[in-house]
Amino acid sequence: MPTLRIALAQVDSTVGDLTGNAQTIIEWTRRAAAREADLVLFPEMMLTGYPVEDLALRSSFVDASIAALHDTAARLAGAGLGSIAVVTGYLGRRTGPAPHAGEPASGAQNAAALLQDGRVVVTTAKHHLPNYGVFDEYRYFVPGNRLPVFRLPCGGAAADVAIAICEDLWQDGGPVTVTRQAGAGLLVVPNASPYERGKDAERLELCVSRAAEAGATLAYVNMVGGQDELVFDGDSIIVDAAGTLLARGPQFAEALVVADLDLPNADLAVHLGDTPADARDGTQMTIHRVAADPAPDRGNEPGPDGEPGPVWPRLSPLAEVYAALVTGVRDYVRKNGFRSVILGLSGGIDSALTATIAADAIGAENVHVVLMPSRYSSTHSVADAEDLVKRQGLNARTVPITPMVDAFEAELDLSGLAAENLQARVRGVILMGLSNEAGHLVLTTGNKSEIATGYSTLYGDSAGGFGPIKDVPKTLIWQLARWRNEEAARLGQTPPIPENSITKPPSAELAPGQLDSDSLPDYALLDAILDDYVVKDMGVAQLVAAGHDPALVGRVVTLVDKAEYKRRQYPPGPKITPRNFGRDRRLPITNRWREPDPQ
Amino acid sequence: MPTLRIALAQVDSTVGDLTGNAQTIIEWTRRAAAREADLVLFPEMMLTGYPVEDLALRSSFVDASIAALHDTAARLAGAGLGSIAVVTGYLGRRTGPAPHAGEPASGAQNAAALLQDGRVVVTTAKHHLPNYGVFDEYRYFVPGNRLPVFRLPCGGAAADVAIAICEDLWQDGGPVTVTRQAGAGLLVVPNASPYERGKDAERLELCVSRAAEAGATLAYVNMVGGQDELVFDGDSIIVDAAGTLLARGPQFAEALVVADLDLPNADLAVHLGDTPADARDGTQMTIHRVAADPAPDRGNEPGPDGEPGPVWPRLSPLAEVYAALVTGVRDYVRKNGFRSVILGLSGGIDSALTATIAADAIGAENVHVVLMPSRYSSTHSVADAEDLVKRQGLNARTVPITPMVDAFEAELDLSGLAAENLQARVRGVILMGLSNEAGHLVLTTGNKSEIATGYSTLYGDSAGGFGPIKDVPKTLIWQLARWRNEEAARLGQTPPIPENSITKPPSAELAPGQLDSDSLPDYALLDAILDDYVVKDMGVAQLVAAGHDPALVGRVVTLVDKAEYKRRQYPPGPKITPRNFGRDRRLPITNRWREPDPQ
Repeated sequence: MPTLRIALAQVDSTVGDLTGNAQTIIEWTRRAAAREADLVLFPEMMLTGYPVEDLALRSSFVDASIAALHDTAARLAGAGLGSIAVVTGYLGRRTGPAPHAGEPASGAQNAAALLQDGRVVVTTAKHHLPNYGVFDEYRYFVPGNRLPVFRLPCGGAAADVAIAICEDLWQDGGPVTVTRQAGAGLLVVPNASPYERGKDAERLELCVSRAAEAGATLAYVNMVGGQDELVFDGDSIIVDAAGTLLARGPQFAEALVVADLDLPNADLAVHLGDTPADARDGTQMTIHRVAADPAPDRGNEPGPDGEPGPVWPRLSPLAEVYAALVTGVRDYVRKNGFRSVILGLSGGIDSALTATIAADAIGAENVHVVLMPSRYSSTHSVADAEDLVKRQGLNARTVPITPMVDAFEAELDLSGLAAENLQARVRGVILMGLSNEAGHLVLTTGNKSEIATGYSTLYGDSAGGFGPIKDVPKTLIWQLARWRNEEAARLGQTPPIPENSITKPPSAELAPGQLDSDSLPDYALLDAILDDYVVKDMGVAQLVAAGHDPALVGRVVTLVDKAEYKRRQYPPGPKITPRNFGRDRRLPITNRWREPDPQ
Repeated sequence: MPTLRIALAQVDSTVGDLTGNAQTIIEWTRRAAAREADLVLFPEMMLTGYPVEDLALRSSFVDASIAALHDTAARLAGAGLGSIAVVTGYLGRRTGPAPHAGEPASGAQNAAALLQDGRVVVTTAKHHLPNYGVFDEYRYFVPGNRLPVFRLPCGGAAADVAIAICEDLWQDGGPVTVTRQAGAGLLVVPNASPYERGKDAERLELCVSRAAEAGATLAYVNMVGGQDELVFDGDSIIVDAAGTLLARGPQFAEALVVADLDLPNADLAVHLGDTPADARDGTQMTIHRVAADPAPDRGNEPGPDGEPGPVWPRLSPLAEVYAALVTGVRDYVRKNGFRSVILGLSGGIDSALTATIAADAIGAENVHVVLMPSRYSSTHSVADAEDLVKRQGLNARTVPITPMVDAFEAELDLSGLAAENLQARVRGVILMGLSNEAGHLVLTTGNKSEIATGYSTLYGDSAGGFGPIKDVPKTLIWQLARWRNEEAARLGQTPPIPENSITKPPSAELAPGQLDSDSLPDYALLDAILDDYVVKDMGVAQLVAAGHDPALVGRVVTLVDKAEYKRRQYPPGPKITPRNFGRDRRLPITNRWREPDPQ
């Protein structure tokens, strides 16, 4: 029985940075070779980053990706790493017949390749293209219809290894069933699977059931890092066909996950070449068998039972969300060439949590906050903001807004909402001015409950380049703040967020004595309705049947529907729920659909 | 030979307004009945509007559309219009087997139905789903695989009429080939086909070639009106199998296009019911034949040759673009419940043209302009703006920005770009304040050349709810302004735009003596590169091969690539080119891809 040492390179990749991503492949292959791995596996679209969106339609970019793949193969051969087999995702192009009706004319494919000894030994393309939620892969890719199986000599025998890509695991039929027909002992799966709450449990379950269906050990490697509104959480997994967890990578951190796998002997009577297979999803696939070269002998041959790989501990539900937000901010800042951020600090919980996430992401020394009190700011607001600055050592500055507000009001006679919005917009102008002057990225501090209901000011508190808590409902904001303080206490550090910012009733402080509860329902009730309406897409009748108060349902649905135009101009922020505001939920602005009043 | 009188109801539909759209179907069916039509044809997704985007994923909305279809059928029967056959688009749902892998779980379909005598006689669904450009139909719809053919008695004989939907005409195979196999004499095609420059010529060519392929007369009805960034231009077409144009509707206007069609006799030996057919696009389809009732006898039976329908004259290329912009603005304002707009008037050509479009769309009395001179505003700027106000009778107000700018500068030490942006943002705050106070929609005045290169200020001149000239390159702005003035002169009216606004060198006037040409290449050169880079998606090597100056290519491509974050927060505006900034071009913000320097 051959024992194969596999290394999952759970790494970060940057969209468009072909040179940097190729370098990452070389460095991590070096690490895998140092661990004497036979095979190292990189994520989906590793070479280009994911998602590349309309770059996939540009021929020059597809060409550059393919050229970079061949160049990487050559550089790997030149790096003296022996015959280690490297499987990586890249952006490829269909060869052969022209795309069918409805397929992109560019012929681009979400592809993966086996590189060995300086050669691109075999390539494949994703068969099932996700086109829901944040995914638009029918727009970009021609589906693949070939399952490559490479025969990898190891430990004096040989194992047959099949390659499938990400969504191929999530849909019935296709590569998983064909893997069983091909009798492959190992199915390797590069992924770029974005984080959302609870997805890790779903992923493990999926890997277990697909490994059983394929009758093979399954090695799933996922990307790490932030890309605009997506955060990839890693959480790479190896399970055997019996469902035993052999290895699991960390969440939100790069890691090389190494494991020794006992695999069935390849049936050498089965010849290399092509065999038609029944994909059981209405399409035909081809099993394409090729030979791989043996990796050099390992110094320390593992025992006959092999060694299971490491299983990293799981984060708690709140730690996991917090890590996603920190990763999203850190990578948006870093990958866009910023070194610092700026945000307004009101003394309230939203800006307090945003500042804390930013400090955890890029260091307090790179976080600039501006206190912008108005005539309606309470003394506790300023005190709470100053307390937070002191606890975390942020760079702070105070700019009272009254003179600017007065200058506008001397010319314009604004009242009510217009006067409230003016204050928020003056703050937006101050932050943007300081950003332009010093090159800070402006962080916007709105939460999902506000953004859902339109309880924000366009070009005011919504001004900024990135919204760290955009997908975080208000009730979860409080939970995260408490968790972060408890975590600090547990580690013997100063809790970063003033208790008063957590416990006081929320207020926009744009009018005397104003409270959020003047305009919005209780946040616990509101967030429950928003989850059912926005995330689960229930209609009004379903919302009422789910037990929500009919009057409240009518009010909340109307608020959400009318705020679409504001959301369209909101900056991106990390997705943490199954349906965020952004690529995940696309509604027309011009939309007269109003569900019948539930009352 | 049966003669069938067809009426194409080239009408406007509003997304989500099921009640209003149903009323439109009833009113226009009444008009068609008054013209003694046998058959009236409405656009694609008429009942729901198009595109409904993620509303298609919401079960309650799909249910409401289907209920509205049946209700409309019943109301038509009650309206005493006889047995007129009505074909209309709606949002339907797949019946029968569960959707395949990758199809939306909601089972929603882009459907069409034949209504007659209070019944839904037959339904069908779009076979080819467009998923490129602004279209995302794989996200929303399960494809149909049935070609309905209804046998419509008329003039003592009977004609077989097939139904296909929009994209079914644009792709090879599928309903068009099956129409020929079915021997139908008429193929009717509901459409929601958005305008872009030159598309009308392409459409006519397509209809001619598909009518020949189908061996049938082809009746193509298109929607009219604006929906967020799309404008539907009408331009409905009837051609016979020999390619003769029998009727053509107007552009950007509602109309009932009536024509008498001489059709081959239906082969009565062919039984009603289902027959499998070869769609020649890798799928199987079913021909589904049903009987329709005869329409009541017409008082005036047409002669044996029939009468061709009317052919409306075509607009000139510039008149067409201008009409698209006016339609886009008018419908965004109207369908979103606004009655008036507000915009800043600088004396320059962009705001002058935007104000003129707005006045043409909703009347000068509903257009409010604000002159916001700064210390850098030239005297001619103010004079040109005042001249425009006078020519058109707009509501004008002057708010000098110096006091507000001074108030900010007293607190913040801003220089260079930050100081320039401050002026633009103070103007944005003024417009938003006046908008909030009076309920005007803010129009933003940026053109496509500026938006492409990032030559605009976030939350400054880019602030607003709708951008009328967002997809119009600067060189076309000048052409449109000249055309509009010439048109006025031709009609004996005052040219609305001051000549000086057209001829003077463009300037943002944010710094002393500033001109656009300090920061940007000559607009003729710039727009040529932008068309090849943004619209045609050429890479750098292609751009240079196309004859553009290598140094300029490098500079422009870098400007465009770096401005993605600004575009993400820009409001929608009418699409007039084959690739607008919006749903049509989706690029990551975080994107390190930079093509090799061409120099």
